[in-house]
Amino acid sequence: MAGPGLLARLAQCGLNLPTVAAPLASYVPARRVGGLVLTSGQLPLVDGVLTVTGLVVAEGATPPAGVSLPCVTPAQAHAAARVCALNALAAAAAAVADPDQIVSVVRVVGYVASAPDFTGQPAVVNGASDLLLEVFGEQGRHARSAIGVAALPLGAPVELELTVEVRD
Amino acid sequence: MAGPGLLARLAQCGLNLPTVAAPLASYVPARRVGGLVLTSGQLPLVDGVLTVTGLVVAEGATPPAGVSLPCVTPAQAHAAARVCALNALAAAAAAVADPDQIVSVVRVVGYVASAPDFTGQPAVVNGASDLLLEVFGEQGRHARSAIGVAALPLGAPVELELTVEVRD
Amino acid sequence: MAGPGLLARLAQCGLNLPTVAAPLASYVPARRVGGLVLTSGQLPLVDGVLTVTGLVVAEGATPPAGVSLPCVTPAQAHAAARVCALNALAAAAAAVADPDQIVSVVRVVGYVASAPDFTGQPAVVNGASDLLLEVFGEQGRHARSAIGVAALPLGAPVELELTVEVRD
Repeated sequence: MAGPGLLARLAQCGLNLPTVAAPLASYVPARRVGGLVLTSGQLPLVDGVLTVTGLVVAEGATPPAGVSLPCVTPAQAHAAARVCALNALAAAAAAVADPDQIVSVVRVVGYVASAPDFTGQPAVVNGASDLLLEVFGEQGRHARSAIGVAALPLGAPVELELTVEVRD
Repeated sequence: MAGPGLLARLAQCGLNLPTVAAPLASYVPARRVGGLVLTSGQLPLVDGVLTVTGLVVAEGATPPAGVSLPCVTPAQAHAAARVCALNALAAAAAAVADPDQIVSVVRVVGYVASAPDFTGQPAVVNGASDLLLEVFGEQGRHARSAIGVAALPLGAPVELELTVEVRD
Repeated sequence: MAGPGLLARLAQCGLNLPTVAAPLASYVPARRVGGLVLTSGQLPLVDGVLTVTGLVVAEGATPPAGVSLPCVTPAQAHAAARVCALNALAAAAAAVADPDQIVSVVRVVGYVASAPDFTGQPAVVNGASDLLLEVFGEQGRHARSAIGVAALPLGAPVELELTVEVRD
């Protein structure tokens, strides 16, 4: 990253790295392999609690019949994706000695728990992508997939995987 | 790739690289990292318009109740996957100086927007895999996952991620 | 991997590498790229037959209306994920000269065909993660995503992708 490191950039954006969420199971928050760190799928947890749960439904649409999960608006899901991105940065940072070793963002996959009629996944996952651009500038530009899935762990509306480039 | 480069191979197959689709949001069509290029999820767009939209339903099956998206046949989705693969090659080519630097296909993930009873994702994603084999020959043989998802951006029936190997 | 190689570790766990499942289509079971092997999505096949098919539904929950697939319990899906993991190890091993070249597990993606109300994907995918830890010990600790999807090939309840580190 040209100029200041990750921690300074986060501070400029008024952000801090959160505590890394404990994995829900038999895995680790992130794995380094060569010059990359791959994170586990990150949920919108703050202090161990999901900020929102449910299925994302288009603004004004009827929730799908027979689903007991709450409905989540695209705006709520966008905010949740931003939380996922911060958690993913924290997970990646925990896999290197110093968070400033993270120099660029390579790839994001955003899974959005979606009602079958909801097709606005890109706008939801922008909550994550925009945060990464804000923090990393040009080095934050990444390849990305946004996918609408049936259901996510704990009822989360968004799950995010992050691949970053690291330097020693 | 042994013998002719990507552009010559495409020409032999009667194909051209399409214009790279503008990302729907805050990301780039593909990112290079070391000897690999990873594309963003590619939709079946031709000149910026989806060739088909909707949920893939098995031949002869009843569409799921309460879903307002149109039904897509497996054959239509197969054709869409082929379009995705061409778009993905174009996205990958745009991340290197010369498309002929792309020497092999490493990995494909094909997401198919599926009615819950539709389990023919492999045949759909063959639309992409067969194109890649046609263009690259032996160097086109890739690892692949085919997944049936709830919904995709803009109502696309297929989204495709591609990882290719590049040489300087 | 410190100490014994993959085959010896499997034997200590009372396990054998199964025959590699034939790809359902135009792809290969795994691709090596540099020091990594990426597998194709693996299904819970034993001798070419799925051990279980259907949609995973929470214990005691009503199956979703209008879906003709059978219901699968989380416990059945957990067992299926373990089978997927063994198949994925076999696929990865087939991409190197000697299975003992596989030294660590980098990443797992577990796709679980899920009723919209089922949010227990992490416990299901633990069937795979726990097997990998059992076999590899500390070198088995991986990054992981667990995703609930609409449908999977052949009606499988679980599909698993594996990335492993290899040494020459």
